Amino acid sequence: MNAPTKIDTGAEALMATAIRVLTMDAVQAANSGHPGMPMGMADVAAVLYNRFLNVDPTRPNWQDRDRFVLSAGHGSMLIYAINHMLGYADMDMDQVRNFRQWGYRTAGHPEYGHADGIETTTGPLGQGITTAVGMALAERMHNARFGDDLVDHYTHVIAGDGCLMEGISHEAIDMAGHWGLGRMIVLWDDNKITIDGSTDLSTSVDQLARFAAAKWHVQSVDGHDREAVAAAIEAARNDPRPSLIACKTVIGQGAPNKAGSHKVHGAPLGAEEIAATRVALDWPHEAFTLPKAVYDAWGAVAARGRAAREGWEARLSVSEKAGAFERSIAAPDKAALAAAIDAYKAKLSAEKPKVATRKASEMALEVVNATLPNTAGGSADLTGSNLTVTAGMQPVSKDNYGGSYIHYGIREFGMSAVMNGIALHKGFVAYGGTFLVFADYARPAIRLSALMGLPVSYVMTHDSIGLGEDGPTHQPVEHLASLRAIPNLNVFRPADVVETAEAWEIAATATTTPSLLALSRQNLPCLRTEHVSENRVAKGAYVLREAEGARDVTLIATGSEVEIAVKAADLLAEEGIRAAIVSAPCFELFAAQDAGYKTAVLGSAPRVGVEAAIEQGWAPLLGERSAFVGMSSFGASAPAETLYARFGITPEAVAAAAKKLMK
Amino acid sequence: MNAPTKIDTGAEALMATAIRVLTMDAVQAANSGHPGMPMGMADVAAVLYNRFLNVDPTRPNWQDRDRFVLSAGHGSMLIYAINHMLGYADMDMDQVRNFRQWGYRTAGHPEYGHADGIETTTGPLGQGITTAVGMALAERMHNARFGDDLVDHYTHVIAGDGCLMEGISHEAIDMAGHWGLGRMIVLWDDNKITIDGSTDLSTSVDQLARFAAAKWHVQSVDGHDREAVAAAIEAARNDPRPSLIACKTVIGQGAPNKAGSHKVHGAPLGAEEIAATRVALDWPHEAFTLPKAVYDAWGAVAARGRAAREGWEARLSVSEKAGAFERSIAAPDKAALAAAIDAYKAKLSAEKPKVATRKASEMALEVVNATLPNTAGGSADLTGSNLTVTAGMQPVSKDNYGGSYIHYGIREFGMSAVMNGIALHKGFVAYGGTFLVFADYARPAIRLSALMGLPVSYVMTHDSIGLGEDGPTHQPVEHLASLRAIPNLNVFRPADVVETAEAWEIAATATTTPSLLALSRQNLPCLRTEHVSENRVAKGAYVLREAEGARDVTLIATGSEVEIAVKAADLLAEEGIRAAIVSAPCFELFAAQDAGYKTAVLGSAPRVGVEAAIEQGWAPLLGERSAFVGMSSFGASAPAETLYARFGITPEAVAAAAKKLMK
Repeated sequence: MNAPTKIDTGAEALMATAIRVLTMDAVQAANSGHPGMPMGMADVAAVLYNRFLNVDPTRPNWQDRDRFVLSAGHGSMLIYAINHMLGYADMDMDQVRNFRQWGYRTAGHPEYGHADGIETTTGPLGQGITTAVGMALAERMHNARFGDDLVDHYTHVIAGDGCLMEGISHEAIDMAGHWGLGRMIVLWDDNKITIDGSTDLSTSVDQLARFAAAKWHVQSVDGHDREAVAAAIEAARNDPRPSLIACKTVIGQGAPNKAGSHKVHGAPLGAEEIAATRVALDWPHEAFTLPKAVYDAWGAVAARGRAAREGWEARLSVSEKAGAFERSIAAPDKAALAAAIDAYKAKLSAEKPKVATRKASEMALEVVNATLPNTAGGSADLTGSNLTVTAGMQPVSKDNYGGSYIHYGIREFGMSAVMNGIALHKGFVAYGGTFLVFADYARPAIRLSALMGLPVSYVMTHDSIGLGEDGPTHQPVEHLASLRAIPNLNVFRPADVVETAEAWEIAATATTTPSLLALSRQNLPCLRTEHVSENRVAKGAYVLREAEGARDVTLIATGSEVEIAVKAADLLAEEGIRAAIVSAPCFELFAAQDAGYKTAVLGSAPRVGVEAAIEQGWAPLLGERSAFVGMSSFGASAPAETLYARFGITPEAVAAAAKKLMK
Repeated sequence: MNAPTKIDTGAEALMATAIRVLTMDAVQAANSGHPGMPMGMADVAAVLYNRFLNVDPTRPNWQDRDRFVLSAGHGSMLIYAINHMLGYADMDMDQVRNFRQWGYRTAGHPEYGHADGIETTTGPLGQGITTAVGMALAERMHNARFGDDLVDHYTHVIAGDGCLMEGISHEAIDMAGHWGLGRMIVLWDDNKITIDGSTDLSTSVDQLARFAAAKWHVQSVDGHDREAVAAAIEAARNDPRPSLIACKTVIGQGAPNKAGSHKVHGAPLGAEEIAATRVALDWPHEAFTLPKAVYDAWGAVAARGRAAREGWEARLSVSEKAGAFERSIAAPDKAALAAAIDAYKAKLSAEKPKVATRKASEMALEVVNATLPNTAGGSADLTGSNLTVTAGMQPVSKDNYGGSYIHYGIREFGMSAVMNGIALHKGFVAYGGTFLVFADYARPAIRLSALMGLPVSYVMTHDSIGLGEDGPTHQPVEHLASLRAIPNLNVFRPADVVETAEAWEIAATATTTPSLLALSRQNLPCLRTEHVSENRVAKGAYVLREAEGARDVTLIATGSEVEIAVKAADLLAEEGIRAAIVSAPCFELFAAQDAGYKTAVLGSAPRVGVEAAIEQGWAPLLGERSAFVGMSSFGASAPAETLYARFGITPEAVAAAAKKLMK
């Protein structure tokens, strides 16, 4: 469908030169940035766009566009230069001229959402290529549902040595090879240079052999021989495997004195070398001034993309699947899920099941997955522990892209970056599970979920010392605090089966915020025994049980410790002390409430916080007269009940802390 | 030197069977644990120990012992069973019987420091193999300094599919291949099973081809054919490359009905299957009872190790390098470094250089590296940014293990795990650098540094929005909070060249605590202009400048924001407001001070905290009447000064916050 039309290779040299010149001038103006990669890969990029890639600057988010991921995000000027010349309306020359300045779209690294035509935020190395795996997987899964007429595009990546040295690249290429993502093409900037110097300083891997071992199609070409590059991309498209093309390039190509050196990687060329480069490239034009021939050449690419988009729209308009297609890429149906969750909550409050919140999550997911037609679940090889699969879900494989459950393997980081890619591609609502302690492995991708505002859901079970015998390596202690520290991430720690359902309702219908559910291994009683339609978790914290009369103390807890707070309140009641119980399943949503609500919930009595984790991050919920019952060290290996007793997280300890405050 | 002596292969079957039986019985007693791996790899382990590995249970920390790392840490019963049978005094049968119970050494996963003969904590997958790379590198580096007589041992790893799927394994094998670590032998438990089921669900990598691409020697054997395993280990020892031996095994081998299934991975076999296994293995003995023949066979291994150790001690006793050798594995010379740093600080206070704290770190490292003879520095390909190399340091390579600077490549996680391995091996004081924001990539290894109490130092530069144009992907905002959340990690954020020297003095001579230095990209004035010999950073926080008269307000800041606090105090002074300035370079060390000191430093006046990061984690330094000037969102791409102004982290903002508090 996306076959190239007329190719004017005569203009390609000019197209590539324009990338080089815009890059060196913008970096010089900013006195900051990375000229080496865009100058080195200019020929490859010119061929890719000129002959293959279909994008339409007038409809940047046309769903069936080809995707381009600049995994080597420090080379951001490559994408800004190209998008400017293609005619993206929000990328005028003023943007290029103000590269890396406050208020402009041309950030130091490409930032998703800052400008059209940036498919993902890159810069943290290795994540671009892995996010692209998610895009390419989503393309095939979407294709399985809507056919070649509506879903038929390629995912292209430019990656550098850094991306391929980072461990996550191993996870990426194993997944892509395993899933047979033949429409993914990685153009490796094989320039033999890293920041410290020659790649010989730090690596001896035969990358072609490595990718071949992961079931990739591999080629190596001179990255400055445009015909060879074109032939390689053509061959890559015709092979059913994902493709690596090693493009042997000279970093900073075009700069007569600095090309080929690590000194051109991340610093401006300087006025003298820029002048020399202009001479070498036979480029008489002033900085930030391009001749019409350049715009004409890039404009032809945009025109081809526009024609492709119009053809696709024509097919969509007559497709019987058009409605379902549009729904699949739209925001999830909030009303439908709200109704389903409301009915489900009513049943729960009546039946009061005592289950672990990981089991409660599975039960809620049965409702979510039955209501939203396009969830894509998975786990990093802990399906039976995370309880992330629901009835009827079939595994996704290269023989069955129609499946909806992804066995991510033992790859927490890779899973998370792939989920980001699925969310960016659109078509599916992605969630994936691992143990909470291994949020550390996935953290760089969780941060990008938050930075990009992607509505993916992390299902993180075994959320405290309550996991028991596996011991301190597997027991999160600092993880709730460290995750709550990430801006724009909702961390949910539900206390029972009802709160878990409410958390899932929010997570599954979010549009600009990732969610992380911290879930218990151990069983917890149903505490929300009176049904209300209101989603109480949405307020972040609420009074689960008011004191009988004026409060003497407020006990605030999350997750599995709410049960302990309830028992502590009962102990206190025996001594005539009136304790209110606040459940606080989401600190971030509580922080967003107005002052009046917060005051009403927290009250003016002394407060005791209870969480089987460190105190850090609790300050906004506690106050002047307060105490905290939790952890202050790593955990230990023993049965869960023993650990709670030994670490002093018990109803008795909470009651004692409350009484001490009241003295 | 460590060549095997007499081999009694007749007893090997018994040795392996004993591992299987102890494993299944201990897991059953705990009703928790992972029998599959130890039972599957029992034959391999028996061969490795019986014919090759030299350890001496009577001197567990004999420096030239062979190292064994159970990267697949969930199979912890393998190591407990072996160490019990070898006769480690702290691993009696009572320990085995109480597997995974409170107060016993037999934690769910092997924990370094809990019992002798556990070379590293494992469980978080992929880290064991990478930590082992650090051990194997340290062995060669130590050998280059002290020769074959004193340093001549092997590093062995048992790894599972999980370890090889994790991305960090790519970093590990590339480093090991690049560094030519021929004494590293990885025994891969190639059992085709993961928790979710067959490995076919999630991976298609040809592991042998993958390792070969990274310049490893590779072999594949039947892991239940002991002669084949022995021949493979022998061949691995004789090859100059690191070696992978794929051991084709049946998970849970010996259990007649459950072997070969993922159901035996992480759950007890059950009484019925255990009885059937006893029959199948022809094992009539009761649980936790071993026949003398078993102890005799393992005892012979221990005796060989003891003889090897005695031979080594004899060589050491006559070596002219004995003194230097002992010093290299002892704690760093605190007195020497204190004297050197004192003299250096005096010079700084006199000269008052205005430099970035990353530059200050380089200057301090010149002193540290000149004083301590065995530092091993490095960077994850940011040497020129982290400023981690000092005069005369030569790169470590397979042609020059005598070097002391390690080009870790673009592998933050791998670098950190390798540093853990170097620290565990002993012989060197390891430090390594990256950008602070990429602490996220390294976080799982930083956590293990802290959990194990390893004195490694993380040099993390570009520590705030002050890095400027690289933008939000590169700007730490939540990282100080998330790192301070990790128990037993000292996070230093020095304010000037003097504090940086003091922080390095503490970090370089630590013995049970890892250190992380958060360092500025931008220049900072020298604030400690009056020399004191006392290491003021050691108190965590201190009064940098007292108010003239009774305090109206206390301004508390860290790192680059102390300068801002100083300027704010000057602004306030113009209005007659008396502000004290507290510099708080290390929250953890301040938390360890007594209440009297804390009160004296923090005072009773209102407090303003200033840090170009989120507020989380500041609660212990702030109080009832307090304010915080910092970040509450991700950063942006622009010059540093612009960002500080736009995000409102300025002297004026701090002064305004102070005045508002005093109303």
